Amino acid sequence: MFMCTGFAARDSKTPLGAFSFNRRDPGPSDVLIEIQYCGVCHSDLHTVRNEWGGALYPCVPGHEIVGRVTAVGDDVKKFRVGDIAAVGCLVDSCRSCENCREGLEQYCEKGATGTYNGKDRVSGGHTFGGYSSHVVVTEDFVLRAPQNLDPAGVAPLLCAGITTWSPLRHWGAGPGKTVGVVGLGGLGHMAVKFAHALGARVVLFTTSPSKVADGKRLGADEVVLSTDSTAMAAWRSKLDLIIDAVAAPHDVNVYLGMLRRDGTLVQVGAPDAPLPVNVFSLLPNRRRFAGSIIGGIAETQEMLDFCGEHGVTADIEMIAMDQIENAYARMLKSDVKYRFVIDMKTLPGAA
Amino acid sequence: MFMCTGFAARDSKTPLGAFSFNRRDPGPSDVLIEIQYCGVCHSDLHTVRNEWGGALYPCVPGHEIVGRVTAVGDDVKKFRVGDIAAVGCLVDSCRSCENCREGLEQYCEKGATGTYNGKDRVSGGHTFGGYSSHVVVTEDFVLRAPQNLDPAGVAPLLCAGITTWSPLRHWGAGPGKTVGVVGLGGLGHMAVKFAHALGARVVLFTTSPSKVADGKRLGADEVVLSTDSTAMAAWRSKLDLIIDAVAAPHDVNVYLGMLRRDGTLVQVGAPDAPLPVNVFSLLPNRRRFAGSIIGGIAETQEMLDFCGEHGVTADIEMIAMDQIENAYARMLKSDVKYRFVIDMKTLPGAA
Repeated sequence: MFMCTGFAARDSKTPLGAFSFNRRDPGPSDVLIEIQYCGVCHSDLHTVRNEWGGALYPCVPGHEIVGRVTAVGDDVKKFRVGDIAAVGCLVDSCRSCENCREGLEQYCEKGATGTYNGKDRVSGGHTFGGYSSHVVVTEDFVLRAPQNLDPAGVAPLLCAGITTWSPLRHWGAGPGKTVGVVGLGGLGHMAVKFAHALGARVVLFTTSPSKVADGKRLGADEVVLSTDSTAMAAWRSKLDLIIDAVAAPHDVNVYLGMLRRDGTLVQVGAPDAPLPVNVFSLLPNRRRFAGSIIGGIAETQEMLDFCGEHGVTADIEMIAMDQIENAYARMLKSDVKYRFVIDMKTLPGAA
Repeated sequence: MFMCTGFAARDSKTPLGAFSFNRRDPGPSDVLIEIQYCGVCHSDLHTVRNEWGGALYPCVPGHEIVGRVTAVGDDVKKFRVGDIAAVGCLVDSCRSCENCREGLEQYCEKGATGTYNGKDRVSGGHTFGGYSSHVVVTEDFVLRAPQNLDPAGVAPLLCAGITTWSPLRHWGAGPGKTVGVVGLGGLGHMAVKFAHALGARVVLFTTSPSKVADGKRLGADEVVLSTDSTAMAAWRSKLDLIIDAVAAPHDVNVYLGMLRRDGTLVQVGAPDAPLPVNVFSLLPNRRRFAGSIIGGIAETQEMLDFCGEHGVTADIEMIAMDQIENAYARMLKSDVKYRFVIDMKTLPGAA
């Protein structure tokens, strides 16, 4: 065991503060990473405030991790000291169920181990995330970060990136396809970048006239104001795939109606309240409304490699660790372009 | 033009009654069919009472048609006088859009021509359905009925049958798959028969203890009372595909939760009110909620051929034409096992 510094919530009401805790010493298959950057995901906020229930305190959030490898176990093959490595939302899984064997650990039938607030399969207790100085992760759940990219811009790829990459790939975004993206936030801006980089025609739907120019800069071929019902109607039965990244209640029926035959609307934003689905939106064109959760380890590596080749990173705003509560407040107002990333050098007590 | 007899609604309030009307003389590509049996679909009732809007009067419903070919045009190749033929929900489409070219005329981009209440592409006006003595249909939209089956039991295959066959085939029901069927009515009983005949393990969900024995007789391996929450919970993440044939408002989330990874719940019942979908029901296992409408002509023929080989027909209750209002009343109470079929010999004024 060794002592880490971090930033934790002690309960659902108190602001996060400095926190010291133990991590296991790296075992034969483990990688020790000194964390450089950690992205700030809306799930962090949901968890520290126990909005989804089941929060375990003290809670050290953070699952968009990039850092430098400082030690490796004897059996580690893929990493060496000095490498830039990354860790996403998962640090372990059962590794034996059908889904794990197919490389879809996020759907582990026994439950994958979340990077924070998960039940630790190795050390017991619950896992602590990336708002911390170091993390120890079994090599099979550590990713290689592209060495040519800004590591701070890589961090959000580990959640916001893979959450949109996985459905884009699974449902075949690419040349000849028209992909809609609903909502331009952390997830939506990655969906626009990826769909564009994959060669699809990209149509962004946003409520904000102020985001039109930015949508085009990020790769949208067209930006439609969802408040303009005439412009919206023109897209009826025109899209092959829609990534809906809106986490607030909204009318999905208007978007379902935009799907061509066998098209899919994938909900990656997670509204608390049920979304009313009119069956008559689904019946024509054999439309599909689907869910998707992050991605498996292999496809996360595939995404990172693609980003290295295509120069894709997230657009970020860097913050210091002690600005986290302000960042949460701004995130709640969608006031971020497009992801906060914590510079872990600012962690109190960090080396 | 020649005069047909039929049964029609004059408006949304008045009971159906005898009605004479003209049909076109068979053209070179047309088949003239003397109708022997016509199934009674819930859509008939929705349309004559204008519950979906857009009803055109006088309205002659009926799109589960079986009869004898009494004349064919000079260019007709697939049918001869004396054949037993069938007509389903469609009598025409644009035949040139991508969906039509792929044999999915039900999703015709210009709108397929419904067998009744459709805009007649040949004669103008609106189409008249199978509650009538004869029908004239272009050969491409006429099906061959298996000669070895009871033609009255074949009639409901043309709507209730294909509506469940098409999604079972499209989403891969077969050996090694576990298929759930929700609701044992006209559609549900066909879904059970087909899923069983296709080699899948079939689990029927019903609210009615009285339907358990019948469900097993029809081919269900297991019947689960949906009011038994313990029994329901045991099916979590266990099903590959669900055909939901319930047309009333109901909680689809409990069924979505039964899907394995990449499983699909296909809604073929069409509730009037939107169904609330909890996104957290869709996210795990990358689940899909889909719609499906009847089937294309080629797959309808495939279904009929399969039924001939496997001896599959609908379970029916035969009625006379003048019992139609009573049949509608019983249908509204789900008091039918499992489809009413009109014996067209009972049509007033029929030859």
